[in-house]
Amino acid sequence: MTGRLFVVGLGPGDPRQLTGEAAAALAEAEAVYGYGPYLDRLPPRPRQSRHPFDNREEPARAEAALKHAEEGAVVALVSGGDPGVFAMAATVCDMIAKGPHSWRAIDLVIVPGVTAALAVAARAGAPLGDDFAVISLSDNQRPWPAIEERLKAAARAGFVVAFYNPTSRARPWQLDAAISALATILAADTPVIFARAIGRTDEELSVTTLGSAGGAAADMATLVIVGSAATRTIGRPGKSPLVYTVRARGRAAP
Amino acid sequence: MTGRLFVVGLGPGDPRQLTGEAAAALAEAEAVYGYGPYLDRLPPRPRQSRHPFDNREEPARAEAALKHAEEGAVVALVSGGDPGVFAMAATVCDMIAKGPHSWRAIDLVIVPGVTAALAVAARAGAPLGDDFAVISLSDNQRPWPAIEERLKAAARAGFVVAFYNPTSRARPWQLDAAISALATILAADTPVIFARAIGRTDEELSVTTLGSAGGAAADMATLVIVGSAATRTIGRPGKSPLVYTVRARGRAAP
Repeated sequence: MTGRLFVVGLGPGDPRQLTGEAAAALAEAEAVYGYGPYLDRLPPRPRQSRHPFDNREEPARAEAALKHAEEGAVVALVSGGDPGVFAMAATVCDMIAKGPHSWRAIDLVIVPGVTAALAVAARAGAPLGDDFAVISLSDNQRPWPAIEERLKAAARAGFVVAFYNPTSRARPWQLDAAISALATILAADTPVIFARAIGRTDEELSVTTLGSAGGAAADMATLVIVGSAATRTIGRPGKSPLVYTVRARGRAAP
Repeated sequence: MTGRLFVVGLGPGDPRQLTGEAAAALAEAEAVYGYGPYLDRLPPRPRQSRHPFDNREEPARAEAALKHAEEGAVVALVSGGDPGVFAMAATVCDMIAKGPHSWRAIDLVIVPGVTAALAVAARAGAPLGDDFAVISLSDNQRPWPAIEERLKAAARAGFVVAFYNPTSRARPWQLDAAISALATILAADTPVIFARAIGRTDEELSVTTLGSAGGAAADMATLVIVGSAATRTIGRPGKSPLVYTVRARGRAAP
């Protein structure tokens, strides 16, 4: 007998940004697996077991959830944001590809969520209003020069760029390196958004420019959006500025 | 007296993919503006007026909603998917920039949603599991050669690419042109996903390869995802294949 595995996106942090589909999957699950702080966001339920994991144990988390579902249980594996964007869905698919053939029979349901880039963009205005690229700055599985090349190619082609995992204790210099790389391509007055914990009580959002931006204020939970030549800022009295990107006649290169 | 304007993402079509925040905004609104078919998705509410608009009237829709909010009303302007991705949020910001200064005092709340690319990715597996680019193929405001250059730059740099607005009656040749352009860069066995109406009863999803893909089956509501060199497909007996992209050592160019 084979059960079901929901891979559920919790959204960026505000419980109101959870979808109805995600709430239903969490209500149905007999067991919930995930990074500890994500499980802590969920109200306890009788007859539902909780299986917290460390941040770095992604394959182990996916494997444990798949094994439990294979035994016939309804299991939820949770991710912050959307599970398909630098989160658990790809890890689960990769484990299924490499694991026992029986895992392919598991009823796998991936439940999308609001990813951080969309939540931050909504709070700032509409910086992703034209073509955009989403890129992780984590060099755990990719050498930094390859990341920097990709970043520069996106900016050169006119994409707005959203960075996930911009920095960590092990690589505090990367966000500054990314900003410096983009400063060789984009104007110094290009708008840049730094956002942390959007939708949570300790939310922080700041709007600056590429010429003034520095990586010191960021951490692993920061999401950074760097505009394109078509990104504009509107000041508003007594409110934060609106940042938005208009879809206009594009240039292939500056 | 100045009211409030919610710009609300309805998600891709399945009402269960609406967030709690979006549902609350729709419940609070005295007036709802939007493209007619999106308004038809919403259950009627007593004492809430409905203002349907044609697909092509984006600035008029934004202007009408802003004027109504300026009079002190609580107004919702709805978009399919996420309002910040090729939808109404950027139009609203642009109207505020160009409109009367008083519009800057309106309490503007942009409510993010699940954009089509995330919903399609979840249904297919995890094709957006590594860096990806989101691009509109609409040439209403941008000449086709600039779109094609941007597309090729993204593929050359190793991004998975999601296309919005891939084709329309006025430009039936564009999706084939986009596929041909990518076929000069990516291998013929690169996975390609075509998806329509995901989350609705008439949902369609097909997985093919760049060498076999053709634009004939697509329409304006189709979302297309073209993988990168790191995108894999896993066959599953009695189920659709899983398509996913692993984060692996990237190459800057093939």
